[in-house]
Amino acid sequence: MPAFQRHVFVCHNARAEGAPRPSCTRDGKSDLHTEMQQRVKAAGLSGRVRINKSGCLDQCEHGPVVVVYPDAVWYGNVKPEDAAEIVAEHLIAGRPVERLRVADECMNSKSCPHQG
Amino acid sequence: MPAFQRHVFVCHNARAEGAPRPSCTRDGKSDLHTEMQQRVKAAGLSGRVRINKSGCLDQCEHGPVVVVYPDAVWYGNVKPEDAAEIVAEHLIAGRPVERLRVADECMNSKSCPHQG
Repeated sequence: MPAFQRHVFVCHNARAEGAPRPSCTRDGKSDLHTEMQQRVKAAGLSGRVRINKSGCLDQCEHGPVVVVYPDAVWYGNVKPEDAAEIVAEHLIAGRPVERLRVADECMNSKSCPHQG
Repeated sequence: MPAFQRHVFVCHNARAEGAPRPSCTRDGKSDLHTEMQQRVKAAGLSGRVRINKSGCLDQCEHGPVVVVYPDAVWYGNVKPEDAAEIVAEHLIAGRPVERLRVADECMNSKSCPHQG
């Protein structure tokens, strides 16, 4: 039995200014994380869905990045205003949000023409 | 296609002294993480297996805690000297290390008679 139905990792990584790869947050704080956490709680999913802080997920060029396990669905360029859709569609209804997914060919790659 | 064959999250959470729940690390640094990372690299698994830092995984009483996705296998009370076995057995050979698993009845519970 897994501890959580879904375990969501939100990248909080903040690099020093001038670092060669971009950062998912400016200062280790994430409104996206807070927003998702509050919506999961409001939906009564606490204890079944966990919104977790994570260190660098190594997809920096497509950040801010979120990965949902055990589905292994990756979202890129995620904004706080996308939280409602991810929670309602993916975490409640079980339908990944296609428009936010990092394309397969972008994973582990520094370029990604599909991301804004 | 998932980005990683296996994605391992090592709790790095450090609470203030006197906090009601225990911490997985004393100062946000984890020799366990470093040890696993080095062994994954030495095994030539970089890019396929990622050893990730994470915030609190909410299983504090069984920490230091590690979770391996997409398997959703949870390990508790993990020491740096356990890294070699987790990497060789689980991440290379695909056999979870039973002696380190958090028992199902301990997940999301503050007590766990099976853990040392």
